[in-house]
Amino acid sequence: MGETARILRNGAIATMQQGEDAYGLIDKGALVIEGNRIAWVGAEADLPDVYADLYAEDLQGRLVTPALIDCHTHIVHGGDRAREFEMRLNGASYEEIARAGGGIISTVRATREASEEQLLADALPRVDTLIGEGVTLLEIKSGYGLDMETELRMLRVARRIADERPVEVRTSFLGAHAVPAEYKDRADAYIDKVCIPALRQAHAEGLVDAVDGFCEGIAFDVAQMERVFIEAKSLGLPVKLHAEQLSNLGGTKLAADYGALSSDHIEYLDEDGVKAMAGAGAVAVLLPGAFYCLRETQVPPIALLREHEVPMALATDINPGSSPINSLLLTMNMGCTLFRMTPEEALAGTSRNAAKALGLNDRGILSADMRADLAIWDVKHPAELSYRIGFNPLHSRIFGGRS
Amino acid sequence: MGETARILRNGAIATMQQGEDAYGLIDKGALVIEGNRIAWVGAEADLPDVYADLYAEDLQGRLVTPALIDCHTHIVHGGDRAREFEMRLNGASYEEIARAGGGIISTVRATREASEEQLLADALPRVDTLIGEGVTLLEIKSGYGLDMETELRMLRVARRIADERPVEVRTSFLGAHAVPAEYKDRADAYIDKVCIPALRQAHAEGLVDAVDGFCEGIAFDVAQMERVFIEAKSLGLPVKLHAEQLSNLGGTKLAADYGALSSDHIEYLDEDGVKAMAGAGAVAVLLPGAFYCLRETQVPPIALLREHEVPMALATDINPGSSPINSLLLTMNMGCTLFRMTPEEALAGTSRNAAKALGLNDRGILSADMRADLAIWDVKHPAELSYRIGFNPLHSRIFGGRS
Ligand SMILES: [Zn+2]
Ligand SMILES: [Zn+2]
Repeated sequence: MGETARILRNGAIATMQQGEDAYGLIDKGALVIEGNRIAWVGAEADLPDVYADLYAEDLQGRLVTPALIDCHTHIVHGGDRAREFEMRLNGASYEEIARAGGGIISTVRATREASEEQLLADALPRVDTLIGEGVTLLEIKSGYGLDMETELRMLRVARRIADERPVEVRTSFLGAHAVPAEYKDRADAYIDKVCIPALRQAHAEGLVDAVDGFCEGIAFDVAQMERVFIEAKSLGLPVKLHAEQLSNLGGTKLAADYGALSSDHIEYLDEDGVKAMAGAGAVAVLLPGAFYCLRETQVPPIALLREHEVPMALATDINPGSSPINSLLLTMNMGCTLFRMTPEEALAGTSRNAAKALGLNDRGILSADMRADLAIWDVKHPAELSYRIGFNPLHSRIFGGRS
Repeated sequence: MGETARILRNGAIATMQQGEDAYGLIDKGALVIEGNRIAWVGAEADLPDVYADLYAEDLQGRLVTPALIDCHTHIVHGGDRAREFEMRLNGASYEEIARAGGGIISTVRATREASEEQLLADALPRVDTLIGEGVTLLEIKSGYGLDMETELRMLRVARRIADERPVEVRTSFLGAHAVPAEYKDRADAYIDKVCIPALRQAHAEGLVDAVDGFCEGIAFDVAQMERVFIEAKSLGLPVKLHAEQLSNLGGTKLAADYGALSSDHIEYLDEDGVKAMAGAGAVAVLLPGAFYCLRETQVPPIALLREHEVPMALATDINPGSSPINSLLLTMNMGCTLFRMTPEEALAGTSRNAAKALGLNDRGILSADMRADLAIWDVKHPAELSYRIGFNPLHSRIFGGRS
């Protein structure tokens, strides 16, 4: 037993283990932490004698859950799109906004112009807000550079966030996010000359944990995405995809064929696509913040995902254009309110299933040998986490065993 | 000039004065505070010599706005409705929820059972969250007691909040919120035997700043509300009303006839009702949080309100049943995203027009002689306040001249 070993006692512990009890809830529970791992979890009455002499902290009945995981973010980006938001609400058309330099191109420009230090400084307050909600792990994508240099810079910033803050970061290379202006109508050339070389270079520098893309009419088609996935496979990198957000192009099926960790958005996915995900063991990453901001009406096929037992994750998708939402708790409420997920599904979506969407199997659940990443809440019942809106009941966070 | 006189300089000052410039924005502005009042606001270059020797704080370009005002809340209440929220998402019918003790009746029960100290302790974290967003003034309603003793207790707690925290509170007596179980099908008897006597007693104890009601099929009809308003008038108290939320019963017209400060919700209001509001100088208090939580589709008549120049306010409506939303910034985003208000209208709705909805004319705008209630933000442009979601850029708050 290491020096840092200790007991948390007198808590309501939502282990999020799948089983008979909702939330895997242990009412009067205790949890033993050794180093950065959980050594034991269970009813306090069953605490093994071997731990009897450890320092025990009284949780006073508070709720303990796995620390939250935000498994889909674009949190590193230059600039904001507040003026564009305002123009649109003042009645400007998309053309007028485009002429004024708006749209994703404006974020690409701002990101290209920003130094590594500036991108880091801009991202940290957003990361701090997530940490303040009990997040210990977030995924961060590239995809606003769309050139070799800026894609690499975004990923370096993502890695540096984990040095600057007590949080873990998993990166996704998203060179296939949009076709930059200089490759207008030449998406294939962009894939060949920029996206794939940048992926190789980023991988060579150890900057890539997974490869992502945006398969949609306004971005890349299935054949183009497949070429990126073939490259990912040859590099030994797992894939995931933004797919079926605005239409059903078959991106999810492609992703499943390549053993994707997840398919994300999927508002327009049909039953065949859901079955393909189930067969591949892919996670459905649902992004209600984007759905809310874009005022979409087509909700993801929740009933089919349940029926075929596809795990559902929830993430902020934080990005300056379609989802400037910086709260995972609010995302949980939106999952319930807008997608009719249950509060238990919402919490599984930001713990157990979010870990799975990142290919990690040693977190997102509270059980022996898992990482000691915990969130402790001033609430009586886990449903409160999704029920309240714009209220943060976090009491404290434990990251790798450390408070 | 008092000892506390000082200058705030080098700020972008959104005065929210109506005029040619959006947000009444002064780009490189200064503001002089004397005691709890604003002595001067303008371009820094125009600062009168008389203030030249005052201590000057450099805002480093930050945005200054009027402190935010939440003009419609039910922030004092017993219990929560998280389990009911969860039951519904697990497929329970309204009948099953009612049988399990859910609905407004459960909040009435929890509020009746809670001591004054408990109600206060429960409300303060919610109030603190609003204060953390730059709120210096909030309205608080009774209406979960529905008996003399509990209605008075709720209002006492509302008053105590202003003693416990650096915030001002305006109270509204909302005895006509719902018909309690013991008066089922006897709404008139409830008005006569409980609501009006409780209003008189609360007024006698100095607990009432305005009188409110809920005019709806599930609550009270126009004739019943009129009896409450007649009593309010005889006591010299201003009125306001929850009206036209779920149907058009004519409550807003009644409220206008009684010179109401505001009519609130008003999703179903028609042009005649809007004209009545314009004629009475009433404020339209819009509550997009409730609209979001209830997944309503009928939006308030924004275009008509603009056309007839009815001032629009935005408020959280924070309550445990239909709007457990504790963020005025998020409410501003919802006003834009869901109701298509502009960011300038959203900010006017939580400053200038929110003050007007409470009958106060010395705040909500930054100009000489107004109260020195300010919010200072780490943003470049006021549109960012409505654009970002679940992110709080408050730098600091000044309440009655004090930081
Ligand atoms: Zn995304
Ligand atoms: Zn209300």
